[in-house]
Parts: sequence; C-alpha cells; structure tokens
Amino acid sequence: MKFTQLGIKTLKETKEQSKNADLLIRAGYVNQLSAGVFTLLNLGKRVSDKISQVVKEEMESVGGVEILMPALQPATNWQTTKRWDTLDVLFRFESYYTKTNYALGATHEEVITPLVKNYVNSYKDLPIYLYQIQTKFRDELRAKSGLLRNREFIMKDLYSFNANTEDLDKYYEKMIQAYKKIYQRLGLGDITYLTYASGGSFSKYSHEFQTLTKAGEDIIFICNKCQLAINKEIISEQKKCPECGNSKLTEEKASEVGNIFKLGTKFSQAFNLTYKDINDKDQYVVMGCYGIGITRLVGTIVEVLNDERGIVWPESVSPFDFHLVTLEGATKESKLVYDKLQNAGFEVLWDDREESAGKKLADADLLGITKRIVISAKTIKAGKIELKFRGEKEARLVSIGELLK
Amino acid sequence: MKFTQLGIKTLKETKEQSKNADLLIRAGYVNQLSAGVFTLLNLGKRVSDKISQVVKEEMESVGGVEILMPALQPATNWQTTKRWDTLDVLFRFESYYTKTNYALGATHEEVITPLVKNYVNSYKDLPIYLYQIQTKFRDELRAKSGLLRNREFIMKDLYSFNANTEDLDKYYEKMIQAYKKIYQRLGLGDITYLTYASGGSFSKYSHEFQTLTKAGEDIIFICNKCQLAINKEIISEQKKCPECGNSKLTEEKASEVGNIFKLGTKFSQAFNLTYKDINDKDQYVVMGCYGIGITRLVGTIVEVLNDERGIVWPESVSPFDFHLVTLEGATKESKLVYDKLQNAGFEVLWDDREESAGKKLADADLLGITKRIVISAKTIKAGKIELKFRGEKEARLVSIGELLK
Repeated sequence: MKFTQLGIKTLKETKEQSKNADLLIRAGYVNQLSAGVFTLLNLGKRVSDKISQVVKEEMESVGGVEILMPALQPATNWQTTKRWDTLDVLFRFESYYTKTNYALGATHEEVITPLVKNYVNSYKDLPIYLYQIQTKFRDELRAKSGLLRNREFIMKDLYSFNANTEDLDKYYEKMIQAYKKIYQRLGLGDITYLTYASGGSFSKYSHEFQTLTKAGEDIIFICNKCQLAINKEIISEQKKCPECGNSKLTEEKASEVGNIFKLGTKFSQAFNLTYKDINDKDQYVVMGCYGIGITRLVGTIVEVLNDERGIVWPESVSPFDFHLVTLEGATKESKLVYDKLQNAGFEVLWDDREESAGKKLADADLLGITKRIVISAKTIKAGKIELKFRGEKEARLVSIGELLK
Repeated sequence: MKFTQLGIKTLKETKEQSKNADLLIRAGYVNQLSAGVFTLLNLGKRVSDKISQVVKEEMESVGGVEILMPALQPATNWQTTKRWDTLDVLFRFESYYTKTNYALGATHEEVITPLVKNYVNSYKDLPIYLYQIQTKFRDELRAKSGLLRNREFIMKDLYSFNANTEDLDKYYEKMIQAYKKIYQRLGLGDITYLTYASGGSFSKYSHEFQTLTKAGEDIIFICNKCQLAINKEIISEQKKCPECGNSKLTEEKASEVGNIFKLGTKFSQAFNLTYKDINDKDQYVVMGCYGIGITRLVGTIVEVLNDERGIVWPESVSPFDFHLVTLEGATKESKLVYDKLQNAGFEVLWDDREESAGKKLADADLLGITKRIVISAKTIKAGKIELKFRGEKEARLVSIGELLK
C-alpha cells in the first residue's frame, strides 16, 4: 500500500486527554465521529483485524465455531429475560412502519439462547460452543478514554452450552488458558492479570482479565504469590487473596480487556432451553459466556506500548510488516524493494509522499510499524538497505536478500 | 470442521414462501430472529465471507482502501444533508443519558464526506477511494424474499473522491468492469445485467446490476443487441434502449445486486468539502458511490443456483472445499483423509453424525458444497474414494493422491 492511497494526513496534535486517542488520531488510525464512536481508518482496521485473527485462532483451538448474530433485536426477547427495563445501556427504539420495538445488541444471550433451542433435543447434541466477532452498542453515561469505553465497539463473545456444571467448569478452565495465550500473543502477557470479580446468582465470582495502565478505570489488588488479582469492587475488608489467603496485595489501576462468566441456567430457564438426559429426563442446559473487546484492545495496546515519539506495536498486530521510507530521490530502488517484499508475501506501507526526510522519519515513529526500512542515496551506494526495529535504538545495514529472509 | 461441532440440525421443511430462505434455513446456513433479521450460522458466515473476499479483491484492484465506519450516526450529520426527515428507511432514536439523537447507518455519505474533509486540502490529496464491508440497517416497510430485502444486512460500499467529473467518469467505467468481474466470479455473470436506472440531480442515469430471478422485485427490459437492460422505473413509453435505440426489448423479473451512482457535488456542497486546485482556487470534490449487498448476494445465488435436492454453490463461494461423508463404519479411514486434506490446506466439513447413509447423502445435496467425498467399506476395498461434484450426476472413484491434486 502506498501512503498516498490511504487518504490520511498525520497531525501534530489533538485536543484528546487520552493517550491512546491522541496517538491513534494523530497517526491516522481512527477518526472520531461523535463521543465514543470512531471510524477505523485503514491502519486501525488492519490492527483490529490482526487482533481478531489472534482471538479467532485461540477460540477455534478450544472448539469455538464462528457465527454472526444481529444487532437489531426485538424487545420481546429482552422482555423474556426481564432485561428490557433493567439493562441501562440498551439503546431502545421503535420501527416507524411496523411499530416493532427493538434493542441494539449490547450483549447476545437474548439471541443465542433461543437460537440454540432450535437445535438441541438430547444430551448428544451437547456441547455447543459458538462465538462471533461483532459490533456492540451501549448507551454509556460517559464514553471515555479514547477506545477504552465506547458506545459502538467490536467485541468477541463466545457462548458455551454444556449438559452439566462439571463440563462447564472444565471448559471455563480451558478458556482461561486460551485467554492467557491471547494476551501473550498481543504483547500484554506480562501486565495482564486474571482477576476475581463479582459473580451472579450462579457462581461466587466471575473473572476479568485486567491490563495494568494508569488510564484504566478499574482498581485491582494483585496477589504477589499467585499472580492473580482481585477487583476492588469485591474485595473484602480484610483484603485477602481468595486463592491463597495472602494479604500482601499491591493496588494498581487497570483496564478490563476480557470478562468470562458462568451463567449457569439463568438464560436457559428464561427461554426453557432444555435437553433430554440419558434417562430421557428434561434438564436445563448450563451456559457460560466469554467476552473480549477487540477495539478496546487496540486502545489498550497503544495506551501501554508507546514512547515519546509514537506507538510501538508488537509484531503480532503491526498494521504492516514493513514501513518503507524513501529519501533523496531513491524512488526507483524503493519501488524495486517494495515489489520484491510484496511478492514475497509481506505487507508493506510505502511512504511515497512528497515530504521532507524529517517528516517521513517522524511519521514512521508515530505510526509505530514494527520494522522500518530506509532507502536513500547513501544506502544505495553501500548496496544495502537500512533496517530498524521500532523498539530498538540502532539501525543496521542489510542486503535485500537478508531482508527477504 | 466436524458436522457435530456446527451445533445445527437440518430441517425437512419450513413455512418460508421464499426459495432462498427455505433452503438456507433448512440447510442450517441462517436462522431468522425476526422479520428481515437473520443470524448467519457458521455455514452462512463462511459463504458471506467468501463473497466479501471476492468483492475485496476486486475493490482493491481498482485502488479501493478498506476502512470501517460506525453505524451509530449523530442526527446532526443527517440534518446537514436534510435527509434526517426525508430518508424514510432511517431508524432514529435518542440516547437515554445524553439525549443525543442518532440514526442507524442506512448508507454512509453523511459519515464519509465530513471524514474525508479532515484530510483533503489540495488537488494533490486526490483521488481518494475508500470502501467498507459493514452492517447496514433499514426500516423497511416490508422485509421480504428471504435474504433479498432485510432490515439488517451486510453491504460493501465504496466512495470515490475526484477532482473533476472527467476523473469520476473514468473511475466509474473502471468500477463497472470490476463489478462485472465480481458477478462472473460468483457464478452469476451470465444472468446479471448492467441496468440503466434513475439518476439524480447530477446525472441522467445511475446503474444497477440486476440478476434474473423470478423472486426479484424489479422488472427490467433487456436489449438483446447491447446486452444492457433498463429498469422499468425509467423506461419511456417508446421502450427503446438508451444506448442503441433498439426497441426489441425482453421483459424479465430481476433482483438488484449492485448499484453505482455519480453523486457529483451534492454531498461535498452540503459539507463544504473543497480542495485548492492548481491555481489555488477552491473547488468542490466530485463524488461517486458504489454498493453491493453481500448477504443479498448469498440469497440471490441460492435463489438461482439450486435443484430439487438443495443448493448448488459455485466453487468460489462454497462454504467448504469438501463435504466428507462417512458410511458403514469407515471412521478410521475417514479421519485419515480428513486430516490429510486439512493438512494440505483444504477446508473440509466431515459429517461425523450418527445418521443413516440416506440422511447423510440427502443432507450433502441440501447443503450443496461443491465436492462431495464418500468413504465406505466398498470404497476402502477398492483402495479408492468416491468423489462427486454437486452439479454433476456421476460420481467417480479416485485415489487420495489424485484427490490432493
């Protein structure tokens, strides 16, 4: 992709309070339409897609099957669970023509439970694990912190349907491991904690995954023994780790990047989702749900992985493999390298703009693509290319052959 | 993917009037949530993704750059173009907390025009070609014909921004060729017609792409000379081809599968989207828009490509490469072939259900995956595998080696 095709300009400054919004807007990854509502420009779409791909792979490694549910959801489904009047983040409205009342999907238990009911009769039909990567809408009192709390955002939500709580418990543990792998792959492994949070009628706790950042709106207490954390919301006065009883806990600010929840039979009872067990007796299906905010992760990664010059993407989600900067009229040679890299299957952003060397190099740092290549009269003379990793200080001269490897 | 993982059951019948809805629901591709609102189950999601991929490739071949715009759009943007009160398919509602009025995106001129305004100053910043594959919402008076007219659906929309009408005209012609390639690749090339339709203030005509089907809600007149068509809406009393004057026109029912439109300066005037020309004079940017309904194409393909036993997918959008049917306890050999095909990069649906041979073979026809493999005691004895193309009558015996090729 040539830079001039992107249709963007980098900005010197924004009025954003939030670090991630400031960097993402300045670098041309996103554009704000209204409070808590962003357009993903090409660069932002690429990062979001890469995160989605990592999440997909890990969901499929635990048997998840991808579907896509609607955002436009009839009120009747929400009335069945009595959440039509109680879930305060629901956008609610009426069709002008049919007078049907709709909610915009803030979550999908009200869709997936009656959906699965169509296909489950017997214990032989279980387990079922369905997930989607889909756009959610929430009428938040305050949208804030750039991409961390939005009114429209992309989320992965998986729903598990098991015959009994033992099977749910086993799957839940598998999911914890899958989530840990996701954060590791996204470069957040070392600062993301499995965190005890409030449960519900079915289990004492749910679990969040919390990434340490000053921009986070949660406060967690980390147990240095277990490497687990406890959300402030549920910590008792004694402030003890519920796992080991340790009371040496460290207080930190964090941003929730995942939430997993044993739903039990709450929704299967509401929609009468049952199956015949081996004795031909009706039993309620036991459910779990597992969410990850994809666009919130874009914001969280930028919030924690940056320096004074811009974003520092981990390689796994860098929007391009290479950022190719052409200096001093080295256009012909750059075109050659651009074509070679693309033909070898690499994604390359080629800065073909008529800008100064200083502007181009500053923008490369701002955008934060993992590997930067500079081609100039000097490098051509040496028969080499300058390669620099965004996270490192020193550049090195390499041949095209070495680069392709 | 194993069939038992999908979490679906095929159905003997539905109450659907529409052929595409009947087949897609019976075969477990989609599930209806409410009138005009469908869940894409895994099979349906796969077909939709394959269509999207074809569309993406053709959009990028004409310089399109992918972004993702929001569905939640502030009323103010729609008031600027005076469409807040006049576009009757808009879902409109208010935030409970902030009292902001929103429309759900039925189309995106109101978002992309002010978006592009942030990045365009000079003629050097043009052209810009941005597209998205995104979920649209329309408050239709009547949702009908399965996936052909929905209240929520996936659409590709590209918007072009040129410095003058000559450049727009050139791009528009390129786009006509790109669209033709898309329908060809989707197996609809021979029955899809470039069709003159009503224009607007800027140009006499817009163009639709219309696919012949009895289920379509449009009537078109085909000029047998030009292989062009004219929508009934705009045909004059003389019923002549606007291209060649031929009056031998054939009347057909058809479904609109694409619409391209020269917007001119309508939206750039509303949002004051201008650029400095080479003489430093302000000029309005000249726009075009180019839509394709992705989920509508899923419905259209099924509507026209089926037989009495089920769907007959074209290979380009078949949800899997192979449908592997195991008969008479040939499980071990099937597992071997399943693994070999998957390791070779093929997508395989393995029918691992405890069902009769008759049910499995009937379901393979109903689902319509392009290539069916049967492995049974008989084929094992012959040291072969039975391969059958969905569109052909005869099966053939092949070795695994031949299959992998």
